[in-house]
Amino acid sequence: MIQLSEDELIKSKKLIALKKKSGTHSPSFHAIRKLGINVDIDGCFLSNPYATDLFIDYMNKDLIETNKLRKYIELYPSQNTRIAHSLSKRLNISSEYLFIGNGAIEIIQAILHRYVKGKIAIPIPTFSSYYEFLTDETTACFYQLSKENNYKMDIDKYINYIDENKINNALIINPNNPDGGYIPQDKLVYALESLKHLDTVILDESFIHFAKNGDNSLVRNEELIKKFPNLFIIKSLSKDFGIAGIRCGYAVVNPDVTNKLLSNGFLWNSSGLSEYFFNLYSENKFYSDYLLVREKYINETEDMFLSLSKLKGIKVLPSNANFYLIELTDGTLSSTLYAKLMIKYGIYVRNCSDKIGLKGQYIRLASRSKEENTQILKAFRELYS
Amino acid sequence: MIQLSEDELIKSKKLIALKKKSGTHSPSFHAIRKLGINVDIDGCFLSNPYATDLFIDYMNKDLIETNKLRKYIELYPSQNTRIAHSLSKRLNISSEYLFIGNGAIEIIQAILHRYVKGKIAIPIPTFSSYYEFLTDETTACFYQLSKENNYKMDIDKYINYIDENKINNALIINPNNPDGGYIPQDKLVYALESLKHLDTVILDESFIHFAKNGDNSLVRNEELIKKFPNLFIIKSLSKDFGIAGIRCGYAVVNPDVTNKLLSNGFLWNSSGLSEYFFNLYSENKFYSDYLLVREKYINETEDMFLSLSKLKGIKVLPSNANFYLIELTDGTLSSTLYAKLMIKYGIYVRNCSDKIGLKGQYIRLASRSKEENTQILKAFRELYS
Repeated sequence: MIQLSEDELIKSKKLIALKKKSGTHSPSFHAIRKLGINVDIDGCFLSNPYATDLFIDYMNKDLIETNKLRKYIELYPSQNTRIAHSLSKRLNISSEYLFIGNGAIEIIQAILHRYVKGKIAIPIPTFSSYYEFLTDETTACFYQLSKENNYKMDIDKYINYIDENKINNALIINPNNPDGGYIPQDKLVYALESLKHLDTVILDESFIHFAKNGDNSLVRNEELIKKFPNLFIIKSLSKDFGIAGIRCGYAVVNPDVTNKLLSNGFLWNSSGLSEYFFNLYSENKFYSDYLLVREKYINETEDMFLSLSKLKGIKVLPSNANFYLIELTDGTLSSTLYAKLMIKYGIYVRNCSDKIGLKGQYIRLASRSKEENTQILKAFRELYS
Repeated sequence: MIQLSEDELIKSKKLIALKKKSGTHSPSFHAIRKLGINVDIDGCFLSNPYATDLFIDYMNKDLIETNKLRKYIELYPSQNTRIAHSLSKRLNISSEYLFIGNGAIEIIQAILHRYVKGKIAIPIPTFSSYYEFLTDETTACFYQLSKENNYKMDIDKYINYIDENKINNALIINPNNPDGGYIPQDKLVYALESLKHLDTVILDESFIHFAKNGDNSLVRNEELIKKFPNLFIIKSLSKDFGIAGIRCGYAVVNPDVTNKLLSNGFLWNSSGLSEYFFNLYSENKFYSDYLLVREKYINETEDMFLSLSKLKGIKVLPSNANFYLIELTDGTLSSTLYAKLMIKYGIYVRNCSDKIGLKGQYIRLASRSKEENTQILKAFRELYS
C-alpha cells in the first residue's frame, strides 16, 4: 500500500482543494504548477501526440512558411454545409448527413438540448457532460455497468433496463470513457435494431480510431444512419488527431436533423483552422500519413498495457481506447496514488474518485509518447515492485 | 446611369445565380473567382485590416517564433469562466457578468433560442441572423426605420411601436448594420429606461469601436447591466480586431444568465487562438497599440466618406461604423453597380437588394486599407464623374 510523506500530504491537500474548484473535470496543468508542483507528463490528456506532430508539420508547410496563416485568422470561415462537403469526401457519405461542430461538445449540447426529452439511459461510469448538459425536461437514468464484467457493456441487459424503465432515449459510447470498453460491430448493430423504437440513440465514437481492431466507422456510417433514423453518431476529432485546441467535431445524423439545426443557427461555428483541418483531412496524402501515426500510437499503447498488466497491486482493465482504467487493489486510495505520481514523479493522472458508477479505487492513465510512457512505467514499477 | 456591356451582362447573370445559392449572406471571394471574375478588393468585408496586421505581428512574436503555437493547437483551451476572467480585466467589470462566445453569432443564437419568446421588435434594415435564428416560439415584428431620416433610429417612435404592438422583446444594434446609424449614449440610456419592463432588450454593439465619437462602451457596460437586468449586450470582436477566423465574441449579461447558460453547456466553446486573443486583449501594451490602429482606420474611413459624398448620382448615408450604405440616385440598379464594380474593377461590394426594409437601390461598401480605399474611390470617380 502506497503512502504519502508529510510534505506530499500537505501538497495533496492543496490538490484536493484545487480539484473542488474545477467541477467534474480535471484542473489544468497550469493551475497545478501554480501550487509549486513540477508536473511534466500529462497522463490525463487523451490525445495522440504523434498526430499533433503531423498536423503541426502540415500547418508549418501549408500556412506558416507560405504566410497563408493570415487568411485563416482574418477571414470568416466557410459555413457549416461547405465544411461538411469537405468532410463528406473523406467519410464517403453525402454531406447532408453531416453536421460540423465546434468540438464534439457543441454537438452533444445541441442534441441533448433539442432532441432528448423525457428519460435518457446513460451507462455509468461515463463522460460527465452527458448528464451535466441535460435540460430540466430530461431525467438521467443511470445504468450501472458491471464491475465484475470489467464495466463491459452487456447489450441484452442494457436493452432490458431500457424496456423495463420505459426509457425513450439511450446513450452508447464506444469505446467507452473512462474504461475503454469496446462493443464489436455485430453487437452494436444488434443494439441499434433493438433500440429502433426509441426517440434517439446517441452513439459517441470519439475514441473509435484507437480501437485495435481497426476503424470500421468510416465504412459503416452511411449504412447505419440510413437504417436507423433515430441514430445520432457523435465524433470528436480532438483526440485521434491531437488538435483539441482548434475544436473539431462532427455528427452523422439524419438529414432532417442537419436541416433543422441549420435552419436557425450554427452557420459559422467553425474557426479558420478548423476549416483548414477538415480540408486537410479530405486529402489522401495527409490521411495516409495519419494512418501511420495512428498505428504507431496504438502499438505503443498496447505495449504499455502489457507492461502495466504484469504489476501486482493494480488491475489494468482491457481497453480499446488510448487510456487505461486502473483499479488499485492493494488498499491504496486513488487520491493517494494521484498525489504520489504527481508530486514525486511529475505525472498527472485522472483520479476517478468523482466518477459515478465506479466501485472501488481507480485512476485513469492516458498513453502518451513512447518516451513519456517509459517514464510512466518506470514510476509504476518503482511503486509496485 | 450605369450600364453593363454584353460580356458584363453574361457574368452578371452568373453572379445572380451564385448569390441565390448563398442564402441571405454574401457569396465568398473564392466562389466568385471560380466564375472567372478577377476580384481583388473585398469591400464586403467589415474588418479593420490594420488590426489584423497587429494581431499577426503579436502572434508571430509570441507563438510562432517561440514554437508555442503547438500548445494552442494541441491542448484543450480553458473553460468559459476562465477566459471571461481575462476579459474582465480589460473591461473592468466582474467576470460573472461576462459570457464568452464562439463568435458573437453563437451568443445571438443562444439568447434568441433561450431567452426570447413571444414577440421581438426588430428595426429594419438589419443583420439578417436576428430574424433567421428565431425559433418557432417567436414572432419577428419588423419596425421600419425611416428612409427620409436616413434610417436613423427615432427612439420615441420605436418605443411607441413596441407599446402599441404589445411586444415583449426588443433589438437595438448600435451602430446599426447596414447603415452605420448611431444612437448617442444619453438616448440609449433613455431607451433602456423606457424598455425596462420588457423580457429582454438585446443591444448589439459589434461595431461600437468604429464610432467616431469614441468607445464609451468600456466604461458604461457595468453601470448599464446592473441597472437593467433585462439587458443583453452582444459584442463581436471579429470586425474591430480583424480576427473573424478565430471566432471571438462576448456578451455582458446579468450573472443569472451566465450561470444558467453555463449550467448545462458552453464549457469549452473557445479555441486555443481565441483564448490567446482574450489574454492578449487584457495586456496594456497590445491594447494601446490597438487604439492607434483603430484611430488610423477610423480617420481613413472618414476620409473616404468625405470623398464619396462629393460624387453626384449616389447618396452616401452618414455612418459611425466601418462601412457606408450608398443609395444609387441616378436610376442605376444596385445589381448593375455591384456587377460593374466586380467585373470591371475587381471590387466586391454588398448588393443590398435582398435586405428587407431598404427602400430603393443600395449597396454597402466597407472601408479597407488606405491603398484599397484609393482604388475604390478611383473606380467610383470614373463611374460618377
